[in-house]
Amino acid sequence: MLTYHFGYGEDRATIRRGKRLRPQIAMRTALAEGAPLERVLDAAAAVEMLHNYSLVHDDIEDRDELRHGRRTLWNIYGVAQAINAGDAMCAISFLTLMRASERLEGARVLEMVRVLHEAHRVMCEGQALDLQFERATQVDLAAYHHMIACKTGKLFEAAFVLGALAASTSPDDVARYAELGRAYGRAFQIRDDVLGIWASTDATGKVTGNDLARRKWTFPVVWALAQQPSAARSTVADAYAAGEALDAPTVTRVVDALISLGAQQAAERAIAEPMAVVRRHPDAALRTYLLGTLG
Amino acid sequence: MLTYHFGYGEDRATIRRGKRLRPQIAMRTALAEGAPLERVLDAAAAVEMLHNYSLVHDDIEDRDELRHGRRTLWNIYGVAQAINAGDAMCAISFLTLMRASERLEGARVLEMVRVLHEAHRVMCEGQALDLQFERATQVDLAAYHHMIACKTGKLFEAAFVLGALAASTSPDDVARYAELGRAYGRAFQIRDDVLGIWASTDATGKVTGNDLARRKWTFPVVWALAQQPSAARSTVADAYAAGEALDAPTVTRVVDALISLGAQQAAERAIAEPMAVVRRHPDAALRTYLLGTLG
Repeated sequence: MLTYHFGYGEDRATIRRGKRLRPQIAMRTALAEGAPLERVLDAAAAVEMLHNYSLVHDDIEDRDELRHGRRTLWNIYGVAQAINAGDAMCAISFLTLMRASERLEGARVLEMVRVLHEAHRVMCEGQALDLQFERATQVDLAAYHHMIACKTGKLFEAAFVLGALAASTSPDDVARYAELGRAYGRAFQIRDDVLGIWASTDATGKVTGNDLARRKWTFPVVWALAQQPSAARSTVADAYAAGEALDAPTVTRVVDALISLGAQQAAERAIAEPMAVVRRHPDAALRTYLLGTLG
Repeated sequence: MLTYHFGYGEDRATIRRGKRLRPQIAMRTALAEGAPLERVLDAAAAVEMLHNYSLVHDDIEDRDELRHGRRTLWNIYGVAQAINAGDAMCAISFLTLMRASERLEGARVLEMVRVLHEAHRVMCEGQALDLQFERATQVDLAAYHHMIACKTGKLFEAAFVLGALAASTSPDDVARYAELGRAYGRAFQIRDDVLGIWASTDATGKVTGNDLARRKWTFPVVWALAQQPSAARSTVADAYAAGEALDAPTVTRVVDALISLGAQQAAERAIAEPMAVVRRHPDAALRTYLLGTLG
């Protein structure tokens, strides 16, 4: 089941795998801090496995039948085996991380294990909030930012911090990487939210308006509902007030309303500050990579 | 959700909580090895939380609506939130274990974290097998013993080992506690299987014949099907061959068939060896406690 989830044994030319952002970040951070790659490989694999364990469980919780065009684990093996396979992937993630003790001193590995478990705990908090949002009639910007900081930001933060810890970076520099991770996570998620409404299927694998059809509380929607009363705001509010999936004509109306309200520009403004944190990072190679992933 | 699962805030006089076997074992092992209780409290709490996380997920996977007469987490909050709450409990279990680094040296804590994660991984392997058994038309004794060693035995082993590690026991003695844990787990599960067929509701909270009604592959059933052909064996085989839950008259017939085959005595023979391991343990207080829990 785990091999299937990762798409191993399938045609590399046609399969759409994930972008491996988190292990890339862990590895590039360690390299930026002057560490040989071997010191960070266990942590990089661990953070990717923890992320994928969360995807296996999220797919069950969200009832998603496809991921990157392939059937999800629960869709093939059933909910019971898929929950348990995710649990196993969580255990294997940490067992992999602990193999770093062959290369790093014990105290450092223990700190890395603590960092990844804390990320695990906070991700669960974010997912609990995201699940609550499904039934909410209103989500404000503060709640939205807290949710994405927990659900998305915390594991990105952990990826940077694990890379820095693997490189024996000083505590002050680890704290700076944690800040970079939080900023990157915020920019990444808001961009992802914009793509979830306006991306074309070809470029990203996302379907235009898909997050609206699923009535997800993404940045453009939450921001739009925080604006002064207007016809466009009412269009969005009414569509979300029904508490059900949006049909195709409603999605089109909401997309137009979001455009007329200026939600895309609002998203750009919202990521200006975190993007500035990324642009200020001193290592050119890491900075270039990060900006590339943010489009 | 986690507070509800543990029954906190409810009437202590009427609520049926778990027996806290695993933390009791961890604590009593540390005491038997001469350690002060403070050294083992984090590990004891962690092993109980990891056990309860597995119960939260097992209840979803088995669609159990009640545990100790109270509604299960998914039954109240839904499958999605319950999966995620279990995941959070897993994270909190390990974060709790790592608090031991305030009292124990780092290398020892790292080894304890590794032991508990390895138990976590093996438990998932056992649960995957148990879920496969649901659809099996035949389960042999070797597969049964492997499944219970993974699903039940491994966490008991971890409870003993964590207690011993907290007490700075020598590696040889840790290995002896691991063996004791495996033996205890085997005796415990086979006894539990017998109770799942013959216990009265009052004494144990189990319903007579309940594991048969649910068509579980317990020791008495697996053993009975491994015997030479007979009318009694056919009664058991036919009931399980249908692949569905057993109705009340069938349960009664299967109970009678198991009795006439001598399945209860076979279970006693099967636990004779692990019980002897428990009886040989040198610490009288720990030995007495363990034998008491095995009835």
